[in-house]
Amino acid sequence: MKLLIVNPNITEEVTDLIKAEAERSASAGTEVTMATAEFGVAYIETRAEAAIGAYATLNRLAEGYEGHDAAIIAAFGDPGLEAAREILPIPVLGMTESSVLTASMLGKRFSIVAISRRITAWYRECVESYGLGGRLASIRCLDEPLARIDTVQQDKGETLLALCLQAVEQDGADVIIVAGAPLAGLARSIADRVPVPVVDGVSCAVRQAEALALLSPARPTAGSYARPPAKDQKGLSAALSRLVGTPG
Amino acid sequence: MKLLIVNPNITEEVTDLIKAEAERSASAGTEVTMATAEFGVAYIETRAEAAIGAYATLNRLAEGYEGHDAAIIAAFGDPGLEAAREILPIPVLGMTESSVLTASMLGKRFSIVAISRRITAWYRECVESYGLGGRLASIRCLDEPLARIDTVQQDKGETLLALCLQAVEQDGADVIIVAGAPLAGLARSIADRVPVPVVDGVSCAVRQAEALALLSPARPTAGSYARPPAKDQKGLSAALSRLVGTPG
Amino acid sequence: MKLLIVNPNITEEVTDLIKAEAERSASAGTEVTMATAEFGVAYIETRAEAAIGAYATLNRLAEGYEGHDAAIIAAFGDPGLEAAREILPIPVLGMTESSVLTASMLGKRFSIVAISRRITAWYRECVESYGLGGRLASIRCLDEPLARIDTVQQDKGETLLALCLQAVEQDGADVIIVAGAPLAGLARSIADRVPVPVVDGVSCAVRQAEALALLSPARPTAGSYARPPAKDQKGLSAALSRLVGTPG
Amino acid sequence: MKLLIVNPNITEEVTDLIKAEAERSASAGTEVTMATAEFGVAYIETRAEAAIGAYATLNRLAEGYEGHDAAIIAAFGDPGLEAAREILPIPVLGMTESSVLTASMLGKRFSIVAISRRITAWYRECVESYGLGGRLASIRCLDEPLARIDTVQQDKGETLLALCLQAVEQDGADVIIVAGAPLAGLARSIADRVPVPVVDGVSCAVRQAEALALLSPARPTAGSYARPPAKDQKGLSAALSRLVGTPG
Amino acid sequence: MKLLIVNPNITEEVTDLIKAEAERSASAGTEVTMATAEFGVAYIETRAEAAIGAYATLNRLAEGYEGHDAAIIAAFGDPGLEAAREILPIPVLGMTESSVLTASMLGKRFSIVAISRRITAWYRECVESYGLGGRLASIRCLDEPLARIDTVQQDKGETLLALCLQAVEQDGADVIIVAGAPLAGLARSIADRVPVPVVDGVSCAVRQAEALALLSPARPTAGSYARPPAKDQKGLSAALSRLVGTPG
Amino acid sequence: MKLLIVNPNITEEVTDLIKAEAERSASAGTEVTMATAEFGVAYIETRAEAAIGAYATLNRLAEGYEGHDAAIIAAFGDPGLEAAREILPIPVLGMTESSVLTASMLGKRFSIVAISRRITAWYRECVESYGLGGRLASIRCLDEPLARIDTVQQDKGETLLALCLQAVEQDGADVIIVAGAPLAGLARSIADRVPVPVVDGVSCAVRQAEALALLSPARPTAGSYARPPAKDQKGLSAALSRLVGTPG
Repeated sequence: MKLLIVNPNITEEVTDLIKAEAERSASAGTEVTMATAEFGVAYIETRAEAAIGAYATLNRLAEGYEGHDAAIIAAFGDPGLEAAREILPIPVLGMTESSVLTASMLGKRFSIVAISRRITAWYRECVESYGLGGRLASIRCLDEPLARIDTVQQDKGETLLALCLQAVEQDGADVIIVAGAPLAGLARSIADRVPVPVVDGVSCAVRQAEALALLSPARPTAGSYARPPAKDQKGLSAALSRLVGTPG
Repeated sequence: MKLLIVNPNITEEVTDLIKAEAERSASAGTEVTMATAEFGVAYIETRAEAAIGAYATLNRLAEGYEGHDAAIIAAFGDPGLEAAREILPIPVLGMTESSVLTASMLGKRFSIVAISRRITAWYRECVESYGLGGRLASIRCLDEPLARIDTVQQDKGETLLALCLQAVEQDGADVIIVAGAPLAGLARSIADRVPVPVVDGVSCAVRQAEALALLSPARPTAGSYARPPAKDQKGLSAALSRLVGTPG
Repeated sequence: MKLLIVNPNITEEVTDLIKAEAERSASAGTEVTMATAEFGVAYIETRAEAAIGAYATLNRLAEGYEGHDAAIIAAFGDPGLEAAREILPIPVLGMTESSVLTASMLGKRFSIVAISRRITAWYRECVESYGLGGRLASIRCLDEPLARIDTVQQDKGETLLALCLQAVEQDGADVIIVAGAPLAGLARSIADRVPVPVVDGVSCAVRQAEALALLSPARPTAGSYARPPAKDQKGLSAALSRLVGTPG
Repeated sequence: MKLLIVNPNITEEVTDLIKAEAERSASAGTEVTMATAEFGVAYIETRAEAAIGAYATLNRLAEGYEGHDAAIIAAFGDPGLEAAREILPIPVLGMTESSVLTASMLGKRFSIVAISRRITAWYRECVESYGLGGRLASIRCLDEPLARIDTVQQDKGETLLALCLQAVEQDGADVIIVAGAPLAGLARSIADRVPVPVVDGVSCAVRQAEALALLSPARPTAGSYARPPAKDQKGLSAALSRLVGTPG
Repeated sequence: MKLLIVNPNITEEVTDLIKAEAERSASAGTEVTMATAEFGVAYIETRAEAAIGAYATLNRLAEGYEGHDAAIIAAFGDPGLEAAREILPIPVLGMTESSVLTASMLGKRFSIVAISRRITAWYRECVESYGLGGRLASIRCLDEPLARIDTVQQDKGETLLALCLQAVEQDGADVIIVAGAPLAGLARSIADRVPVPVVDGVSCAVRQAEALALLSPARPTAGSYARPPAKDQKGLSAALSRLVGTPG
Repeated sequence: MKLLIVNPNITEEVTDLIKAEAERSASAGTEVTMATAEFGVAYIETRAEAAIGAYATLNRLAEGYEGHDAAIIAAFGDPGLEAAREILPIPVLGMTESSVLTASMLGKRFSIVAISRRITAWYRECVESYGLGGRLASIRCLDEPLARIDTVQQDKGETLLALCLQAVEQDGADVIIVAGAPLAGLARSIADRVPVPVVDGVSCAVRQAEALALLSPARPTAGSYARPPAKDQKGLSAALSRLVGTPG
């Protein structure tokens, strides 16, 4: 099994965090290929940054998907996920979708713990777009500027743990999702200090990618996820151009 | 990896169908233990039959779960799923939940193809209870009495295929779920004749059970899925009694 | 008019509380028959206990319904209600459903006051399953272990009153529902100290049962509440067996 | 028990139909007082007519409520119901609300059968305002101009029956509500020809009014149904003026 | 362009406030005609007062609409809006609808700042009736009796500003709506002290009225906003009578 | 007043259609600047094409917005709208949002008429993301491959009219929205043959842009539409880079 994982932001240190957690999570025999957005921002907090990240991600996926069994978009908020699903011939997964679906099998209501206040609106809209807004107990977040994005786990570990506990005690969360690629691995390290299951986006996405790839669902030729109809194009990369609307 | 699969109805032939599809779906190294409800009805179509099946299933799970990594309730409609999740120390999965969550990663809207008209109300309420009613494109169903429940795939194969195609063409389904343990394996056999992905409950539940067990989520000690508080009991089987409200 | 009231938990003292309030509430000429679950737990707080209680209740209803005009399932959370409605030839009512529908005619938003924190998840899911989650202002609850379930009104009376007042002042409740069979009668005793209407499940269910029985709705022979289709069975009590899927 | 029933339209023949069905439905010992709107239209089909009917109804209720135990607004669509509930010291009920709540205890999904296409938008919005839009299977309606409003049952009886049957067979209705005061009594006459329970607004409202009056809920002094705060007024009838915002 | 603006309450000083803000908001060349309800209450806080105001407003609109290009109902809560839309041949707008739609184009979630606690239930139900309840971050309100309704901006200015800031900081509002005709003009005066856009009902309604009138939508002759079908009437003013159900 | 209108697809002929309708719709004194996406596809039907169009549009807006009072994204489906709103200092409007909000003031339920079946999923998701899915009566669409996108009005005029009429007669639409930039101007030409108001995205967006610009809402410095926090970037155009996360 080969998985392509694209980091939609430009920070290589975050790509490394994702890779480490993906390899800890994956089954023996699963190989992981990493890619980082070629343009964009250091980390994605807003709708505008997500739109940029979505396009960067589509390009990276298009260039790299061949030879893989499934692909993962490794930013919580899932920039470009539904778009990628239409054009790639392999399953595509997102960190938010994978973690909320996994959390749904572990309890009724889940809370998300996030790295900034600004990021919460985008996360909320993402969960609501999947139809699961009614199961979102709360989003709790750090509320100070971050000195560095790649060391937020170390710098803010106790605060993040406290947010998890508040979500359980005050918001009625049955499950906690620690959100955002920079928190990859945190779920693992605090699990024994939180009284409900804690999951994170990377490990859930890796497990779901393996499950989905093994089911080998057929590529749709009808419905709204069939390849876009062929039409004139301009200015797309060769790789993306081949996927968009070229009959195949 | 060891999975316990409980058939909530009393029909051993259906248990055999489930077992065959579970074994076809499972990873190498995954072992499946089957159990059949000790009381109940031949197949579950109604809320009353589901309430009976839920209790029979809780008893079977309680007796058999030890030594397993996850358990599956193998009737579409998931009788007793949320209840089992509270009391078992291992992940518990249902066919409906597993298949609708899997379908959610393959498209936006899904349709369910079912074996009787009567069964559709129960299925619809089950999907709605998970918060995903807005993504249910339709439920299409056979509409004649079934001569035998265990040969419905053979007896009604072409009609079932036609229902799948109608769901795609008329209802806007991006994914088809063939529902009900008696249809275990059908998705596999008709996949190449349906223009969107077709999934079934057994294979989705097996794959999700493997994924969830490998994540090894902690058993909650708080929230609404912690073990029920200890209290006086009467008339429960020894196995069930040990799980309900006994501190541990 | 004869009403059968089944207590889904095993505590006879709670059955007595229910009976007393039912008789205070009923019209002259209405006779009440009480039954207590033959197996289960001391009081129901969780989904697992509710699944057990549902099956115990179906059995008690099946054994006892004959000669009655309507039946009431007397645990807030309504274990087995929809199931019972399919198989019994008389109207079946639940404490939650009756009280939320009654509250809906007295105001727009209602709050529920409950005896434990753990019980609130089950109550919320029950209200949501009726489609009325949008009218639930809040659920407020006692938050300490109960010494005895049958004297909770006396032991915690002032705290329960305070919860009612908080629901009005802080949560915008137009109506208060005091929930749970162990609180039967409390609405009556605190009504003059709460500035909005206070209702309880037993009195609402008794009044609704009388109303429904007098309307004498026909037993459905179509739709999803017709008797389940006849099919093979195993291991059901004779009384329950006669109701499930036996044509008639 | 004394009930005041106000017909929000100006047609005395419809008032007579309502009265006849109310008296057939009421318990022995229940007395019914009828009142007809002093201004408005022959029957209410639209939002504009409902706004007029609401004001006419508030006036009639204000003039007549004293000496009664509950009041009923006898037009499907419930013009003025929430307004009346704020100002009257007795329970106020509406035909739509009473019948959809009653139907909710007889099945999961209900259909409404109505006398004109135009009227269906108003009905739908009324059901949705109660939060029960998700349980509305369909609204089916006559689709031709009515020669007379007071003889629609006789003139269109077979068509109305056919609409009921279509709602069961094609829309999945578990219960049928025949809507509109001009159809008062129809449920009773066709019950044995429809395979699911059939209810009508008048009989449901009468039964619910009796039930609610016997519960004798306290008049709220807080929340959004307390009497409106006292303030300057102009041009209201003496009776209405006394109820609106005069402390009491 | 000529706009008719009806104040649904009887307070001329509020009509003057509305007029001043409407004229400040309107385009050059837009003329404003004001009308005040001939009966009703000093300001509308409740469902009962809104039902009275709706009828008073329909009458004022009917008398005055001729020669105008659009009409505005100038009470937050929009009494009679949907009714007026059916019968008037020109566009009709409401303060709540106009401001929530405008706010929807400036951000995802909005909060409403209101002049009394009692008024908030009516406002909430109004927003929900438009389908936008999910975008309502909060309603914050003054919580003391008002000495005078027409000087509330001056008397409570700092408190109102504080409520705006709380809505942004604590409730996640992207936009603030200052609600109620007595607050007409406040948005303008506090805009530079609130860190998100602040809009008010009068200016939004005036701008939307101009926009809608310039689009000159056709009067419907089908659907649920066509003129009500002709039928017998009684006791309506001549002006209203001409609009309700008279073919034309 | 100066409006910037960006066509998110690459077809200059569609830009011309948009321009012509925009100029017909705009007030005297309003000037329109057009821009066409520099990369992308001939017309946008799918989520993938919309993600590409969103990025192309953000770039065009960034380059061109200066000196304008508001901007319009002129593809139905509003690619990049919420993203653009975060980064531009002027109001940004979309064709779908503008037309559904306008339609909401003309009736309760609206239908959309579209140029291809494939496009309908994207449209539906867009309307649902605004919270107005409950008011969408239907989406009706052409169902054949289009010879040319810029002459679809002429080539398919009668079919499009028939779809409008079906939406009114069969789906209960109170208002029709003709969707998609290639249909710009159609609403105007068929208005007198459809019995309910017909609106189109371009004219609604132009009118709403004028209204919003004249309200001159403040640029937010808090909430989720404030400018994204400053952070490292790579590979963005100079114009876009200046807007994303650069303090200002």
